Amino acid sequence: MKLRSPQARWEQHTQRPLLGLAVAFAVAYAVPIVRPEASRDVVEVCTAVEWVVWGAFALDYVVRLALAERRWQFVRTHWLDLGAVLLPLLQPMRLLRLVSTLLLVGQRARMASQIRLTTYVAGSVVGLLMFGSLAVLSVERDSPDGNIRTLGDAVWWSFTTMTTVGYGDHAPTTGLGRMLAVGLMLSGIALLGVVTANIAAWFIARFEKDDVEERRQTQAIRELTEEVRALRDEVAALKGLRGTSAT
Amino acid sequence: MKLRSPQARWEQHTQRPLLGLAVAFAVAYAVPIVRPEASRDVVEVCTAVEWVVWGAFALDYVVRLALAERRWQFVRTHWLDLGAVLLPLLQPMRLLRLVSTLLLVGQRARMASQIRLTTYVAGSVVGLLMFGSLAVLSVERDSPDGNIRTLGDAVWWSFTTMTTVGYGDHAPTTGLGRMLAVGLMLSGIALLGVVTANIAAWFIARFEKDDVEERRQTQAIRELTEEVRALRDEVAALKGLRGTSAT
Amino acid sequence: MKLRSPQARWEQHTQRPLLGLAVAFAVAYAVPIVRPEASRDVVEVCTAVEWVVWGAFALDYVVRLALAERRWQFVRTHWLDLGAVLLPLLQPMRLLRLVSTLLLVGQRARMASQIRLTTYVAGSVVGLLMFGSLAVLSVERDSPDGNIRTLGDAVWWSFTTMTTVGYGDHAPTTGLGRMLAVGLMLSGIALLGVVTANIAAWFIARFEKDDVEERRQTQAIRELTEEVRALRDEVAALKGLRGTSAT
Amino acid sequence: MKLRSPQARWEQHTQRPLLGLAVAFAVAYAVPIVRPEASRDVVEVCTAVEWVVWGAFALDYVVRLALAERRWQFVRTHWLDLGAVLLPLLQPMRLLRLVSTLLLVGQRARMASQIRLTTYVAGSVVGLLMFGSLAVLSVERDSPDGNIRTLGDAVWWSFTTMTTVGYGDHAPTTGLGRMLAVGLMLSGIALLGVVTANIAAWFIARFEKDDVEERRQTQAIRELTEEVRALRDEVAALKGLRGTSAT
Repeated sequence: MKLRSPQARWEQHTQRPLLGLAVAFAVAYAVPIVRPEASRDVVEVCTAVEWVVWGAFALDYVVRLALAERRWQFVRTHWLDLGAVLLPLLQPMRLLRLVSTLLLVGQRARMASQIRLTTYVAGSVVGLLMFGSLAVLSVERDSPDGNIRTLGDAVWWSFTTMTTVGYGDHAPTTGLGRMLAVGLMLSGIALLGVVTANIAAWFIARFEKDDVEERRQTQAIRELTEEVRALRDEVAALKGLRGTSAT
Repeated sequence: MKLRSPQARWEQHTQRPLLGLAVAFAVAYAVPIVRPEASRDVVEVCTAVEWVVWGAFALDYVVRLALAERRWQFVRTHWLDLGAVLLPLLQPMRLLRLVSTLLLVGQRARMASQIRLTTYVAGSVVGLLMFGSLAVLSVERDSPDGNIRTLGDAVWWSFTTMTTVGYGDHAPTTGLGRMLAVGLMLSGIALLGVVTANIAAWFIARFEKDDVEERRQTQAIRELTEEVRALRDEVAALKGLRGTSAT
Repeated sequence: MKLRSPQARWEQHTQRPLLGLAVAFAVAYAVPIVRPEASRDVVEVCTAVEWVVWGAFALDYVVRLALAERRWQFVRTHWLDLGAVLLPLLQPMRLLRLVSTLLLVGQRARMASQIRLTTYVAGSVVGLLMFGSLAVLSVERDSPDGNIRTLGDAVWWSFTTMTTVGYGDHAPTTGLGRMLAVGLMLSGIALLGVVTANIAAWFIARFEKDDVEERRQTQAIRELTEEVRALRDEVAALKGLRGTSAT
Repeated sequence: MKLRSPQARWEQHTQRPLLGLAVAFAVAYAVPIVRPEASRDVVEVCTAVEWVVWGAFALDYVVRLALAERRWQFVRTHWLDLGAVLLPLLQPMRLLRLVSTLLLVGQRARMASQIRLTTYVAGSVVGLLMFGSLAVLSVERDSPDGNIRTLGDAVWWSFTTMTTVGYGDHAPTTGLGRMLAVGLMLSGIALLGVVTANIAAWFIARFEKDDVEERRQTQAIRELTEEVRALRDEVAALKGLRGTSAT
């Protein structure tokens, strides 16, 4: 085990609290959508929480940049984080804040090396289902001819979309809603891919391949050993002979 | 082959009868839904059968717990069974009884080690199709704006859902119906995954990988054997020489 | 290469003509559906052709049974063919004749050992698309509230079904039509599975696995060879020595 | 590295400019569809650009044919290019020109050996989405009962089709539009296949297979080496003995 860099240590220590903040963000994002009749104060608190969480992740990015050995390489390899940090500044729209926070959470989660691809995808799928439903609901509810008006419909629609079933009993009608839908579809395909790949890998690992070549080798080695044994006996006999003639 | 534990022996012996009971449960569950006009007595008999089957599986769980070497570990590793056993007691709802019995049957089926993943998934897919149709029918038939009113529609809808085709000519409208639908969708994805994985594994097993390294090895061993043979001849010659000089 | 059995020879020789007959069947099946206004005679000719083709496959089955070394085993392993041969006799319905002929063609095609799984699946997919469209058209056209009335709609519907897209702009309404749809869906999943599996196998075959063990072996063999060489020199030296002392 | 043929050098040098021309074609194809109110001149310029791009690819084909070592083999192996070159001459229809240009671009892209399958599929998927949307829009907009009338709808429909979600809120109604849809569906399945295959290959490459046989071999070789060492010592001893008796 090589000594861990300060950056790696920071990332490990901040992981838990940041995920906790992500949960807080989830709640703060959900409340005003699930309860549109909530009072102004509640909404303002939620918005504040969102900004705080985003700020925490932005700070985390800055610290990691500061701790990084090679600054430029860090920026290059983490351009997505940078974008997610800057996005809400350019356009303080709620949805952008959601997307960028999800990106930052995802980037941090991916870094947690003990998280294997499957867990990571499963996690993002659940997160996408949840936030996809909420975001689509908040977008579609206000559109004149939208047909996703309750949280129930939104969740149901997310499932039918992500599993690529797509009944069509509910479908987004606004451009924004459809972008969200495309995101869900693509992650659905990724989900399907991971499920299949897992099963396939599991199967193939259990398939015993016949190693004809291998067995032939083992055979060859055995014969060779016999050969050497025989040789050794001969030499032994020779020694015996020599002994007698020496006396 | 190590000696089998009493638990393992019990599980093997009770396997067949329990699956028989599962079939009985299927019939008892189907009858009142397929024939809503059935008399009170019939319905009561079916309910009784359902309770009996569930009871048998609960008993089986208790016995296995009693026979287990490490009780706590058994409870931990079989928490799903425990939940399935307790569920109907907390809420004697028909659908819960169905779910928990399916869970128990599934757990037992999984234990039957000779059942390979494919058979298991195929089996559960068929079971899910059947019970999914019945459950959705029983749920949706009573909803005001439901569009799944006959067994035919229910089965057809299950297929379009599980294959992720999702025409949308029929779709559940109640929350309960939609939960069942999500279950069907996810098992449909699992089904697709298993089908693909099987074919992929079958293909890959037939792909011949070129073992350059292997062949080089075999070559090396052959040369070595030649080497040793030559050596042996020399020693033999040496012995002959020695023989003459001894006389 | 072992000598081929008379059955195998028969199967090889009859393969081409039987596939030709299958094409004839396809035409004979399509004509009355595509041209419902066709005259009685045309329809009768087509029916005759269908019966002839089916008869040819039935005959082929009988001959193969007669040529088989182990009759009972042949019947057991070819029960599907037997069913397909008997089906139209029990119920001379057009669709049954189609299904059973397709089954017989499929069985024969599968036997053609040079046809690999992919080709086989691709072939059956095309066949299923074609016959699925025709069969659904003939079934749905007569149903009061059917929405598949032209060949174009039928083919379009088959594609949306087999690719599991399922727009729902057209969907079968009769039980028979839905059974056909389920068939298409399942073959669609199989198709998807084969496509994915092919690509996966292709990828994995190109993945180079690092054989640490292998290289260690080669190393060991090399060292051993050195060892033997050294030994041989010693023996040679010994012989030289012996030669001098003998004189 | 063997010396590259003039054909290969030509293909490498013309690759970039040709892809640039492909982009120009994309723009020229999109403009009249996205802006139907565009003036005659604009449309004529676009048509001219399309013909120029197609001509450039046709020229490229001719040059490659001229540079090829084996002319006939080149024609046989590039029959698709030939078709794509001749197609627009037989029928100067806009869609045909699109298809044939896409074919030519695809053929050239495939040749760029550094482009791996995934990149290639991803690229064609994006291209197909873009051109599929545009083509379907141009076809469906004019049909009386079409429901794809804006670019937004067309793109949205392409996504729902390619991911096989298929809500059915928009669907092509003309034969031409449906042919385009089938193309999108099939490439969607290919996309899904590649995604899954990639993940599967990635997983399987990380699966460590246990090489029992291998380890047994290494063991055998080690023992054999011991054997030979022992033998060598004996011979050494023998030499010592001989030395003494010689004096």
